[in-house]
Amino acid sequence: MKEDRSGYTIWFDRGTPGIGYIDQTCIPGTYRVTMAYTPHELAGAIQVLAIRGAPALGVAGAYGVALAALCADAESIDSFLDTIKKDADMLRRTRPTAVNLSYGIDRVFGRIRQEKDVHLAKEAALAEADAVAREDEQMCRGIGETGNALIPNRCTILTHCNAGALACSTWGTALGVIRSAVAAGKEVSVYACETRPLLQGARLTAWELKEEKIPVTVITDSMAAMLMRKSMIDLVIVGADRITRDVVVNKIGTYMHAVCAKYHGIPFYVAAPLSTFDLTSSEIDITIEERDRDEIARWGGHITVPPDVSVYNPAFDPTPVQMITGIITEFGLLRLPDDWDRVTEQVSMADRIIRD
Amino acid sequence: MKEDRSGYTIWFDRGTPGIGYIDQTCIPGTYRVTMAYTPHELAGAIQVLAIRGAPALGVAGAYGVALAALCADAESIDSFLDTIKKDADMLRRTRPTAVNLSYGIDRVFGRIRQEKDVHLAKEAALAEADAVAREDEQMCRGIGETGNALIPNRCTILTHCNAGALACSTWGTALGVIRSAVAAGKEVSVYACETRPLLQGARLTAWELKEEKIPVTVITDSMAAMLMRKSMIDLVIVGADRITRDVVVNKIGTYMHAVCAKYHGIPFYVAAPLSTFDLTSSEIDITIEERDRDEIARWGGHITVPPDVSVYNPAFDPTPVQMITGIITEFGLLRLPDDWDRVTEQVSMADRIIRD
Repeated sequence: MKEDRSGYTIWFDRGTPGIGYIDQTCIPGTYRVTMAYTPHELAGAIQVLAIRGAPALGVAGAYGVALAALCADAESIDSFLDTIKKDADMLRRTRPTAVNLSYGIDRVFGRIRQEKDVHLAKEAALAEADAVAREDEQMCRGIGETGNALIPNRCTILTHCNAGALACSTWGTALGVIRSAVAAGKEVSVYACETRPLLQGARLTAWELKEEKIPVTVITDSMAAMLMRKSMIDLVIVGADRITRDVVVNKIGTYMHAVCAKYHGIPFYVAAPLSTFDLTSSEIDITIEERDRDEIARWGGHITVPPDVSVYNPAFDPTPVQMITGIITEFGLLRLPDDWDRVTEQVSMADRIIRD
Repeated sequence: MKEDRSGYTIWFDRGTPGIGYIDQTCIPGTYRVTMAYTPHELAGAIQVLAIRGAPALGVAGAYGVALAALCADAESIDSFLDTIKKDADMLRRTRPTAVNLSYGIDRVFGRIRQEKDVHLAKEAALAEADAVAREDEQMCRGIGETGNALIPNRCTILTHCNAGALACSTWGTALGVIRSAVAAGKEVSVYACETRPLLQGARLTAWELKEEKIPVTVITDSMAAMLMRKSMIDLVIVGADRITRDVVVNKIGTYMHAVCAKYHGIPFYVAAPLSTFDLTSSEIDITIEERDRDEIARWGGHITVPPDVSVYNPAFDPTPVQMITGIITEFGLLRLPDDWDRVTEQVSMADRIIRD
């Protein structure tokens, strides 16, 4: 039943039915494809970060609701919707900060609610989830095109965490820009920050770039500033988990890189799709997810922090939009707060398309 | 033969003879005291960072040369000096950036060279090494006194790596300031950056402060900037491995904290003894030690970076002296470059004392 779709991180298997995904907790030690057969199994995979990355979570949310629909046993449309709503809420709670997860969930659940018949609703759910996945790929290619125009030939780029193919359905956002620049014939080398505590940069970004034969060197997060001072970094590109009118919320450490890039006069770009923008919130409304103590305090069988010492483990940090040189999107380069009207316009256009 | 000297990190056992030390690779999992019976065993302990921290390396260098003297079998003073010089050079090569190691080695070797008789030289070596250890303790208390005057009551201090008792013979430099402030009745809480790659902050600083019942929370290095932005940090204190007229060289990540502290208007202090100052070098002369790939690329049995991906692992970074609010020394607070003349004066006074 397990099937590997080369180049893709997450996909839907209609036969089973189930959601196939590359288990990102195993890379770089092992490459393993796993299936989630229920929304609960999917929630578990999201919780342990076997599936992670903002756009991939959008696709996971969409396929998760489609899977909930296909698994639901209800006969009346009302009890059918009730069952799916419970699964959708359960999925949403796995990662409270990631707006894309909710985006994928809401897209498919919204589509289901337009149907009066359970069978038709199941078909519509799957079609909508497929559309989310397809759009994710188009979106990454679009971000790549926008970003490529900014990348000089023979440059060195710093990135943090993994905003690559593994964070999307394919291609990637920040790494999508690098892939597109390389595809356009440019020489690019990358410093990948390891990204504590879960090392997505060391494990995933390094693995992806190596597979693509793009030169990459891993450093600890704390080395980036020193490299900037030595003129070893030409620009910084990172992804985003949520963008509001005042801040970009991304993996913890992003703000530190933004401060250091500003201090050294180095351009700092964020690559993110439309679905990452949150029109209704500001920094003050956002709950920053705090993750488990043991992500920092243990490694394998060893303790790395004495047992009765506190640990603070926020998964993300907010960076004021004024500190960001530009946001690379599938509809062009944006500068915030000036271009916020363009964002609202694009989002309402996309909303109209979804409603039609 | 193994003996624990409570409160001390490193000491000399005349009976054996040998150098006793707390094995810092085992903390916080296990508290273990180990003996080095030869200069080679001591070099091994320094190499794997079982003994580390600039002032402790000074004491280790001093006791290492004393041990070399006691172990040396030569009858003529010339072949005796030759043997010790080889051991001294071997010890010096273990950590090329740490100026204190050379300071301790040179102090004792310089003293030995004043003697014409092997037996007297052995006695003098041990006495001189004991003096280095005693001065280290006095120095830490002096730094604590200077620093205490700068610490407001009810404040939160960020520190990086371990500049504590474990980095000295006892008390500590950066943590010595915190200890002195607490001893003076002030309420102080600490954020300890874990300090990748070897986690001296998570393992050692957290352990030391917990033992002293000083409130401490461990964070990843990449979180400090976010805490500064949220006004959760009142001041930063770190140690130093070498201070020249233009830069403070300290654990990798120090420069990043200095940039972020400057950006947020937070005082940034370095606590370091006289023996850390290097009057003859500038940044351009300093070799920054690059350590093993596996410190970043492996953990326990697991690989955390794909096998054929490069890793860059400098152990230290230089921070321009202009970015530092003040250097807390045993002879008062210094601001560089303005107070450089005071440094040269103090160092030449100390040199005169050594020669006398």
